[in-house]
Amino acid sequence: MAILQPLVDLAAICYAQGVRHVVVSPGSRSAALTLAFTRYGRFTIHVCMDERSAGFIGLGIAQQTGVPVVLICTSGSAVYNFAPAVAEAFFQQIPLVVISADRPKEWLHQYDGQTIYQSEIFGKHIKRSFEFSADYSHADVKWAINRISNEAVMLAAIVPMGPVHINVPIREPFYPAAGDEMIPSANLKIIARQPAEKVLSPDVWKALLDEFEEYPRILIAAGQNIPDHELSEVLNKISEEWDIPVLADSIANVSGLRIIRNHDLFLGGKNAEELVPDLLITFGLSFISKDFKLFVRKNRPRAHWHISEDEFLADPTQSLTRTIPVSPNYFFKNLFEKIDYQLFVQNSDPETDSSFLTGWSVQNWNSEQIRGEYVGNLSKLSDLTSLNLLFKCIDRVFQLHVANSMSIRYVNLLNLESNIRSVFCNRGTSGIDGCVSTAIGAALVNEEETLLIVGDVAFMYDRNGLLLNALPQNLKIVVINNAGGNIFRMIDGPSGLPEIETYFETRHSFSAKRTCEDSNIAYFSCREPESLEISIKAFLETRGISLLEIFTDPYENERVWKDLRKLGREQ
Amino acid sequence: MAILQPLVDLAAICYAQGVRHVVVSPGSRSAALTLAFTRYGRFTIHVCMDERSAGFIGLGIAQQTGVPVVLICTSGSAVYNFAPAVAEAFFQQIPLVVISADRPKEWLHQYDGQTIYQSEIFGKHIKRSFEFSADYSHADVKWAINRISNEAVMLAAIVPMGPVHINVPIREPFYPAAGDEMIPSANLKIIARQPAEKVLSPDVWKALLDEFEEYPRILIAAGQNIPDHELSEVLNKISEEWDIPVLADSIANVSGLRIIRNHDLFLGGKNAEELVPDLLITFGLSFISKDFKLFVRKNRPRAHWHISEDEFLADPTQSLTRTIPVSPNYFFKNLFEKIDYQLFVQNSDPETDSSFLTGWSVQNWNSEQIRGEYVGNLSKLSDLTSLNLLFKCIDRVFQLHVANSMSIRYVNLLNLESNIRSVFCNRGTSGIDGCVSTAIGAALVNEEETLLIVGDVAFMYDRNGLLLNALPQNLKIVVINNAGGNIFRMIDGPSGLPEIETYFETRHSFSAKRTCEDSNIAYFSCREPESLEISIKAFLETRGISLLEIFTDPYENERVWKDLRKLGREQ
Repeated sequence: MAILQPLVDLAAICYAQGVRHVVVSPGSRSAALTLAFTRYGRFTIHVCMDERSAGFIGLGIAQQTGVPVVLICTSGSAVYNFAPAVAEAFFQQIPLVVISADRPKEWLHQYDGQTIYQSEIFGKHIKRSFEFSADYSHADVKWAINRISNEAVMLAAIVPMGPVHINVPIREPFYPAAGDEMIPSANLKIIARQPAEKVLSPDVWKALLDEFEEYPRILIAAGQNIPDHELSEVLNKISEEWDIPVLADSIANVSGLRIIRNHDLFLGGKNAEELVPDLLITFGLSFISKDFKLFVRKNRPRAHWHISEDEFLADPTQSLTRTIPVSPNYFFKNLFEKIDYQLFVQNSDPETDSSFLTGWSVQNWNSEQIRGEYVGNLSKLSDLTSLNLLFKCIDRVFQLHVANSMSIRYVNLLNLESNIRSVFCNRGTSGIDGCVSTAIGAALVNEEETLLIVGDVAFMYDRNGLLLNALPQNLKIVVINNAGGNIFRMIDGPSGLPEIETYFETRHSFSAKRTCEDSNIAYFSCREPESLEISIKAFLETRGISLLEIFTDPYENERVWKDLRKLGREQ
Repeated sequence: MAILQPLVDLAAICYAQGVRHVVVSPGSRSAALTLAFTRYGRFTIHVCMDERSAGFIGLGIAQQTGVPVVLICTSGSAVYNFAPAVAEAFFQQIPLVVISADRPKEWLHQYDGQTIYQSEIFGKHIKRSFEFSADYSHADVKWAINRISNEAVMLAAIVPMGPVHINVPIREPFYPAAGDEMIPSANLKIIARQPAEKVLSPDVWKALLDEFEEYPRILIAAGQNIPDHELSEVLNKISEEWDIPVLADSIANVSGLRIIRNHDLFLGGKNAEELVPDLLITFGLSFISKDFKLFVRKNRPRAHWHISEDEFLADPTQSLTRTIPVSPNYFFKNLFEKIDYQLFVQNSDPETDSSFLTGWSVQNWNSEQIRGEYVGNLSKLSDLTSLNLLFKCIDRVFQLHVANSMSIRYVNLLNLESNIRSVFCNRGTSGIDGCVSTAIGAALVNEEETLLIVGDVAFMYDRNGLLLNALPQNLKIVVINNAGGNIFRMIDGPSGLPEIETYFETRHSFSAKRTCEDSNIAYFSCREPESLEISIKAFLETRGISLLEIFTDPYENERVWKDLRKLGREQ
């Protein structure tokens, strides 16, 4: 039989370990893998010819489902095209199982087609790299392949989740003969992994709470995190009952009216020193807000606890004093609800300084007013006015995906309407290379509608995601087209350079229109402020996948962005 | 001064070491590099926002000029997007100098934006990975950076040429202040490398010639090689005067009427055993013809010499007995012209078996007749008839670029008209991922016109090369659109599978039309055999960059391809 039984079994093991989605990029050496997974019959299969986009589509699916997604590709540079998505998955902790077909080792560097050094190809951006032996007949090899198949998928899903790679050497013939059956082995060995939770002992809790009690000014700050309703709830209670401010970037996905969200506007300002906590408690991955990071670096708290199950020591605020390796959900729920304070401390609630919360809340509130007034008085079309109106017009629940570069900075600066339920952005590597495909992947598995906000450069960069064989119809895309990389006009430094248009913004006249026509996407555009609301509503009301391209003026964008930032800092 | 002097000097050193072209992808952390190279004022700068395509554009330029091309990108996944081009450059031995901006090491894995593990990121696909120290002020560091800058460019250009990587940590501020000057250091140290040639001693020549004399049946076979007029000339003389057949794939760029080119048609056939040489002499990189490789593997010659300066041992025909580490040009010229045979051997010419050449020549001639008759009798539009007519219609000199997958197989099967002066294809990794961009890069520096033949999948995959800021106007593109990966219908195995259309061909209805409109490329299309000649002529006569898309039927293509292969084998 042409198709190796261990590859048929690999598909069955992936299914048993929880995989439900497979993204296939076509290839001949990978045919056995493609057939093993498609003929298994229970996976949802997505086909994308460009592996770079395929990788991010898989990432988008896994980001939503929280279970590993399998990516299949053929040998050679195809594998390298997965690398941007693999790096993003590594730093954003998203479970991917990359399965690459390969030549057996003896053909390496022999001028044979589609043969590169695939072992360990993802370097440090992978949780682990596995490889099947080409000698599929030996009993030990069969045992090892079964074990590796189990281990790889399992490992991808262990917190911190992330990508794994299985490199699979395959000899010819690649295809089954007519009538060959592909049936998983009887009594296929599935190795289960018992779920286990990291907890803190009562002694550890007592020590922590004793320390916690010492700090009247406590700030909780949330970096990138997937939506977690229970966690949001307990954070809001902590804020309310203990007068502790909770700051959250948009991608932290912490909901609740009390949450501090406008820090990007006021933390670079003159009153920031009053907001310095004694104890900073952080969780989640990256912070978008550079001003928040600079604020903490400049005003180090007496103590900084980071709640994370990660084993590496990340300290972007240069202030860390303690890591608490449990899940944020466990930590805050137990901190607030489960621990019997009377066992440990004299009072039932911690004694915090309520004026500290007030300080944060006032700045947050004022920033919102300042922004509202400022944006309300703008009459020209700009990125900021466009997105502001877009959020106002959204009349139903959306999941929001935001591209890197300026898009995510705008979203983090604007207060989102409540119809945005969750916000995602590839802040693992903060690249623009997969923003479109990630949103496509997410939309494929989301029941709710998905809205992508993306700049023109990020859109063009990743337009090949739109070559997917079947695009999700619940996806709406807003392209903010400011004719180049407008970010270079916003940040300090390049805006005065004579080279800015040529080598930084790279001004262009591309539009998304024809790309939409190519992929049967309903296309709307707007160039005038008067017609923006009508365009937005028409775009939102269109059934199926649609795209609204808003053409804005890079100079107006620069003016508005800088003015608003200035107002926020001067308050 | 914000811009570090060693980076200004790096640009000057690159120029002094021969670099003339720089491909820039925009970025903020890389701003100092961009400015250092653009303000140097003597480079030709190309700007492409998608690093994957930028990498291949640089590769196309370096492939033509034979001197290193600098690629500049910012930190993060941008670097990974160069990886497909770097791998191709490594195996195709093309000199690239990848210069990536990076954060200083202390920010690695700290959830900071655009920060990945960039050291050694290209794994084994790079000649060497260099890194500047972030401590630019120490005298030893300054010395090392100067030395590394010299070494890296130098190394890329040493045969076998290939890519090198310089990772450059840069701290803020990234931009110069107004009025900052960027002038290379006075007395900048440039380290020169004396050209040197590998030669064989008279004793070695004598031993080789003694062995050479023992073999009456000698075959010379050329793998991928850049055009080399002198080499072609001497190979033709060797063939003529010594009755030695010289076989060359299209990408071997060996010109001359005597050359065996139709081996792909007849080597899989029944008479192949009569063609087995006693001594096989090969040079160049990969062979496209799988049948040639299989023929040699199955019928091992008594001896097989490979002429190559490479240090690794590649033996794709599994028959190698001796490597001769000199340039093919040196070897064949000395073999034929310079060595005084009477010093070493009794006769002045080697005594070869002339019937051996006759056997090869007859098969080659007959294959040409068979193909000519077969193609001449075809009336329907197909990939084969289209390309055949295209080559007939070419009325002036072109350099030909061919995409991987079916395109290069067709070109290797068809006899090229003499107006094609040279043929290039990315056979280092044989990926489809950079075919368009490589041709763009080549056209940018070619005085002659450039013709690219590419399938629909390879075209769509790499269409972002067309986002280059200024496309070359001497480029003509032919897209053979057979609505998917037609190759899966040609090769044995998948054509009978029920999954072929969905998971292998990945049928689609995309066309290149709108992509052309986006990039101001004159577009022509053809769907009927009757109008093909008119379309081809109009396309060829159009001034500036133009594209002809020929829509063919995948079933007709399959029939024609298999019939012709069968005819060739049955002769």
